[in-house]
Amino acid sequence: MSNRYDIAVVGSGPAGLSAAINAKIRNKSIILFGNSELSNKILKAPKINNYLGLESITGEHLKDKFLSQLKAMDIEITAERINNIYAMGDYFTLMVNDKTYEASAVIIAAGVEFSKPLEGEMEFLGRGVGYCATCDAPLYKGKTVTVIGYNKEAAEEADFISELVNKVKFVPMFRENFKMNSNVEIVNGVPISIQGTNKVDKLILKDREIITDAVFILKDSVRPEQLVPGLEMDEMHIKVNRKMETNLPGLYAAGDITGKPYQYMKSAGEGQVASLNAVSYLDSLDK
Amino acid sequence: MSNRYDIAVVGSGPAGLSAAINAKIRNKSIILFGNSELSNKILKAPKINNYLGLESITGEHLKDKFLSQLKAMDIEITAERINNIYAMGDYFTLMVNDKTYEASAVIIAAGVEFSKPLEGEMEFLGRGVGYCATCDAPLYKGKTVTVIGYNKEAAEEADFISELVNKVKFVPMFRENFKMNSNVEIVNGVPISIQGTNKVDKLILKDREIITDAVFILKDSVRPEQLVPGLEMDEMHIKVNRKMETNLPGLYAAGDITGKPYQYMKSAGEGQVASLNAVSYLDSLDK
Repeated sequence: MSNRYDIAVVGSGPAGLSAAINAKIRNKSIILFGNSELSNKILKAPKINNYLGLESITGEHLKDKFLSQLKAMDIEITAERINNIYAMGDYFTLMVNDKTYEASAVIIAAGVEFSKPLEGEMEFLGRGVGYCATCDAPLYKGKTVTVIGYNKEAAEEADFISELVNKVKFVPMFRENFKMNSNVEIVNGVPISIQGTNKVDKLILKDREIITDAVFILKDSVRPEQLVPGLEMDEMHIKVNRKMETNLPGLYAAGDITGKPYQYMKSAGEGQVASLNAVSYLDSLDK
Repeated sequence: MSNRYDIAVVGSGPAGLSAAINAKIRNKSIILFGNSELSNKILKAPKINNYLGLESITGEHLKDKFLSQLKAMDIEITAERINNIYAMGDYFTLMVNDKTYEASAVIIAAGVEFSKPLEGEMEFLGRGVGYCATCDAPLYKGKTVTVIGYNKEAAEEADFISELVNKVKFVPMFRENFKMNSNVEIVNGVPISIQGTNKVDKLILKDREIITDAVFILKDSVRPEQLVPGLEMDEMHIKVNRKMETNLPGLYAAGDITGKPYQYMKSAGEGQVASLNAVSYLDSLDK
């Protein structure tokens, strides 16, 4: 039992970081699994204007602030990707390929993964490609943006941003009757690649191309129940209550993986709640 | 309908501010009720070390950051204390003494009362005890009333009602230099209990007593079930689901008032979630 942590946090976006700093302040031994660059999504965010206390900050700058805070609190990131988490009774085993870790409580804050990227998607990420249309739309006032939408919310989001930009091309990846604003053009087709020079110029579909200043790709994906056998889901997200408890005692979840809206403050708040409840859970084990 | 706001936010702590900035970004017309100093709790916080992105910050500094962000986003604080909120069907009426405001959706982020009621407070509620001095003062023409004040606005309110009654005794629960009307007597002391027969006769302080016809207790927050008739509670807190919806359609709550842990990030995250769901609610009304 030499190396059993009090709390393992899986994920280094705002939810995971907030969970880690709160657990650390409560004097728990923690291991934080994630990416030394924290989160691609944050890194590529051009401008965040709804993070309370950090007025109109770039993703890059926010990342630096997070990293400096971790450093000041002596919290390290273990850059390994967890493949499986098993509930063992009063502790959990976390598998990293052939290595294992143990923790008495686990907080999953792994975000929502997007499946295979389009050709050019990663290349132009932050340079016209984005995953939050409402966040970035204000940058495209007077311009044309394209939304590739995998769900109803994407259609609503396309509709909403049509009030902020000149023209929206909506490429639905599902079938439905759409009733949208007059400056939203519905384009049916299969996206193949995103092209441009410095920034996005066009989206190539199977049988046509769209000249556009931005491409927003709005999906849901990843199945956390593959990560944790027995984990109860709420459709695509981990089912949690207001204490961020999952159906498995000692296992908590926070951030995008627990549901929309996909937003930094929501994630950070949930990470904190998950962490403080995990601390209470640990204290109850000791009694 | 001239002056109906899309969203009214009640409370200027982290939950209320986060709600306000998110609603503003979504192009909703908002009114934010609160305190120009934001929150006493923040103001008095010596050092906050679990606010993600703002490493080891003082409450004073955090307040300045919040204020500068509000200013940059052109969000003003309306320094009025809401006494009642009534659900009117597809909108809400918010009462401020004899003034009213209207909003299609409301987010309550008014914080929690930490203090236990005084002995006798609940017993004499409505029989000399009240929470809105300006509302009830006209009932005490020619009489003596006592105001227990927890903030600056309370001092202003005591001053104001001194023009309506014969004599005001003001018991400040905070330190400051007061310059008040000549018929306002400042009484320093710790309130212990309220006594009377059918109605209030006196307020007992630790080392003296005040003969009085009424006692007004003016704190930053009012008990939520007194604020909104019909609001469902979960013991001391407003009952909400993960979308921060209350039992009343269009009415949301966020922050400490919805339950523990009482923490800034949790509050800010909940304010954001409440706000974005209120925006969806408004959009659904339009269709």
